[in-house]
Amino acid sequence: MSRPTFGYVTPENGPLFTDLYELRMMQAYVNQNHNPRATFSLFVRDLPPNRGYMVAAGLEQVLHYIDTLSFGDRALEYLTEQGFDDAFLERLSDFEFTGDVRALPEGMPAFANEPLLEVTAPIFQAQLFETALINQIGYQSLIATKASRMRDVIDREGDRQQLVDFGSRRAHGTDAGMKSARAAYVGGFDGTSNVAAGEAFDIPVFGTMAHSWVQSFDRERDSFRTFADEYGDESVFLIDTYDTVRGAKIASEIVDEADVDLRGVRLDSGDLAALSKEVDDVIPNVDQFISSGIDEYAIREFLKRGGIGSGFGPGTALVTSTDAPKVEGVYKLVAVERDEEMQPTMKLSTGKVTYPGAKTVRRTESNGQYVGDIIGLQKEQLPGTEQLVTVIEDGERVYEIPDLEAIRRTAREERRKLPEPNRRIEDPEPYDVQISDGLQRETDELKRTLESRLD
Amino acid sequence: MSRPTFGYVTPENGPLFTDLYELRMMQAYVNQNHNPRATFSLFVRDLPPNRGYMVAAGLEQVLHYIDTLSFGDRALEYLTEQGFDDAFLERLSDFEFTGDVRALPEGMPAFANEPLLEVTAPIFQAQLFETALINQIGYQSLIATKASRMRDVIDREGDRQQLVDFGSRRAHGTDAGMKSARAAYVGGFDGTSNVAAGEAFDIPVFGTMAHSWVQSFDRERDSFRTFADEYGDESVFLIDTYDTVRGAKIASEIVDEADVDLRGVRLDSGDLAALSKEVDDVIPNVDQFISSGIDEYAIREFLKRGGIGSGFGPGTALVTSTDAPKVEGVYKLVAVERDEEMQPTMKLSTGKVTYPGAKTVRRTESNGQYVGDIIGLQKEQLPGTEQLVTVIEDGERVYEIPDLEAIRRTAREERRKLPEPNRRIEDPEPYDVQISDGLQRETDELKRTLESRLD
Repeated sequence: MSRPTFGYVTPENGPLFTDLYELRMMQAYVNQNHNPRATFSLFVRDLPPNRGYMVAAGLEQVLHYIDTLSFGDRALEYLTEQGFDDAFLERLSDFEFTGDVRALPEGMPAFANEPLLEVTAPIFQAQLFETALINQIGYQSLIATKASRMRDVIDREGDRQQLVDFGSRRAHGTDAGMKSARAAYVGGFDGTSNVAAGEAFDIPVFGTMAHSWVQSFDRERDSFRTFADEYGDESVFLIDTYDTVRGAKIASEIVDEADVDLRGVRLDSGDLAALSKEVDDVIPNVDQFISSGIDEYAIREFLKRGGIGSGFGPGTALVTSTDAPKVEGVYKLVAVERDEEMQPTMKLSTGKVTYPGAKTVRRTESNGQYVGDIIGLQKEQLPGTEQLVTVIEDGERVYEIPDLEAIRRTAREERRKLPEPNRRIEDPEPYDVQISDGLQRETDELKRTLESRLD
Repeated sequence: MSRPTFGYVTPENGPLFTDLYELRMMQAYVNQNHNPRATFSLFVRDLPPNRGYMVAAGLEQVLHYIDTLSFGDRALEYLTEQGFDDAFLERLSDFEFTGDVRALPEGMPAFANEPLLEVTAPIFQAQLFETALINQIGYQSLIATKASRMRDVIDREGDRQQLVDFGSRRAHGTDAGMKSARAAYVGGFDGTSNVAAGEAFDIPVFGTMAHSWVQSFDRERDSFRTFADEYGDESVFLIDTYDTVRGAKIASEIVDEADVDLRGVRLDSGDLAALSKEVDDVIPNVDQFISSGIDEYAIREFLKRGGIGSGFGPGTALVTSTDAPKVEGVYKLVAVERDEEMQPTMKLSTGKVTYPGAKTVRRTESNGQYVGDIIGLQKEQLPGTEQLVTVIEDGERVYEIPDLEAIRRTAREERRKLPEPNRRIEDPEPYDVQISDGLQRETDELKRTLESRLD
């Protein structure tokens, strides 16, 4: 009998949100007395297409996950059924994270191969986190990036249109509906239509009427009048149910007749730039809110064509990041303790070679603009500012997540420090990310050592 | 202060997983004494690119949502803060669904414009569901379809490879990680790597070792030997960490030395078809499990090139449906009660015209193959078999969701009834879906009426 869930991973089954092989390896680490200290690095191999940067997001959820992780009866019972042994389950029931985590704070720009997060702990502990950490950081970073691109297009035009996430219904499940609202806010949005996300993350919620409101009345005019009776000056009329310009005329008449200061009108179909100008002729001095098929490319086109809008409501394209719906986050073992020292490790798999060792990411700024990063070994002395922050030390939280407003501010300030060519929404120039001499040497040496062992 | 959530919408905030405008309209429906009975139809306007059909999925979650929906203190408190009034909140706290729901059962083929679900109830009730219902049915149907395409490619070759969902880490949030496992199982997969999904939906879970296991030892050989000590004949070795063919040789030596019947090896990089043949020469009679970049196109290519694999582990491409990451599900008002009769309604928005009225979907079969569907008005007498089933009547559940094995069987049997050209993974022929004469007449008449009212 399957257990229906409406889109949630609860505290009871949350610890099971991992891949079976993690638990299989964990049991073997314990039973085979092979539990060395290990460092795992979470990063993306490549930026998604047309992305010159990403915006880091999701750390708050990751820390919450690590802080609260606990295997309860339901989880342990299921693992017993799956054939795990008692000694291992005993260890799981006492699971407590005792290691270190360093991370790139939320809102910061991130590039390929740079760690978004590094976990150092007994491998038994660090192994468990892979699935959940990639899942949360990957998706939120993807959406914060998408949102940042839309905000940037508006910024470049010197405009200040509102951006509101309208995507919950088309997100991939409920968690994506929640996290896209949060990540979009980080990336520069002003709010969301998703009430649960508004409540959970304390971000502004927006919304007025759908076509069903208009259609539920015999006449569009009656629907507007009734709405104005209820909401007065707060009203925003959706004017495209039958004919946009005609709808604007009716809206204008209601404004005169009912003596309300309409907050705005919404356009949701047709040639939005052209219609917005016609609507502005009919009902000037009223905010126009533009939705339907909105993404960074559509916004650029709308503004270029002189469309008149005081706000946009991107939906599907935002929450699915339709033009680049995946980011291949990985969580790779980069160092393991041997003979009481952390030794670098890497794999040589075709097309999937990883850089070994715990890392430092150093960013250099000149005249308020970033000029490049160096990825090096953590122990190296390198120029530039360290980007990774220690967030957990010996199992203790030593970092408080800033509130979402502060993260959003960081994202905005940081975006403006990125060179314009790296921020282009098509064919951006790659940002300069160097591998330090020390890291390159370590990589080459280790590769030689590993290859020599193959014979 | 934001409230961290690790990817869940709980029973406390679940009812808020809706767009603000739904609640705004609901308050106005109540306060303005405008609460007619209404029918909403959930459908997709277009099939995603390269899809000749979709597989319906997600109904179980939708029914669970409707059955359990309840506004508790936390939700009501937040809505008070958002300015909703006491009379409305009182109504919400007593929310109970008293209407009817008809739906296409899970596993059934679905096409553009055909209702996946229709809700008929006082508009106050039916309005609320829009966001949650589209979210759950849209995503699960998208993934069940993607999975079905992969299974179909294997079926066509007369093969029987295992398909296991490896995508949780790359899914858009945790809910997608759960629901993709369920939907993939419906579409013809054999299981998932996601332990929480295995537990929640009672589906088989699979998993062995990651590269980190291999790298955590000085030598690959030691890592295999230790794993075999723990898991014996259940062991599957991941052999591509350093060099795939070399890894196969070591695996073969361990088999002889430790006298284990290896369950299999996994290949995760490089030219998988070519390598699988080399590996088969080195270690024949051992199952090969193939992962990395797997989707229906890659499976077709792999099989065409004579690759040897007994199973595939699609990940990112499955759970994000990368080649078609969105399906634009909509939930449209199609009828509303006036003068004690349900009257059809539609919008005329450019490019978004909807067919009015509650529908019937009739499917015709000939010699075990489907030949076409007719979408008509519910009251029409039409040839073919009705596809929509009443699942809730006057607020009471009158339909039990079959268990997941039965749904999966339905999906397989139904897929085989679809003509081959409609199932092609590229440029499929469109399946024949007709609009009935009655529905076309109703649409044309209503359009004329609505247009005449615009003047």
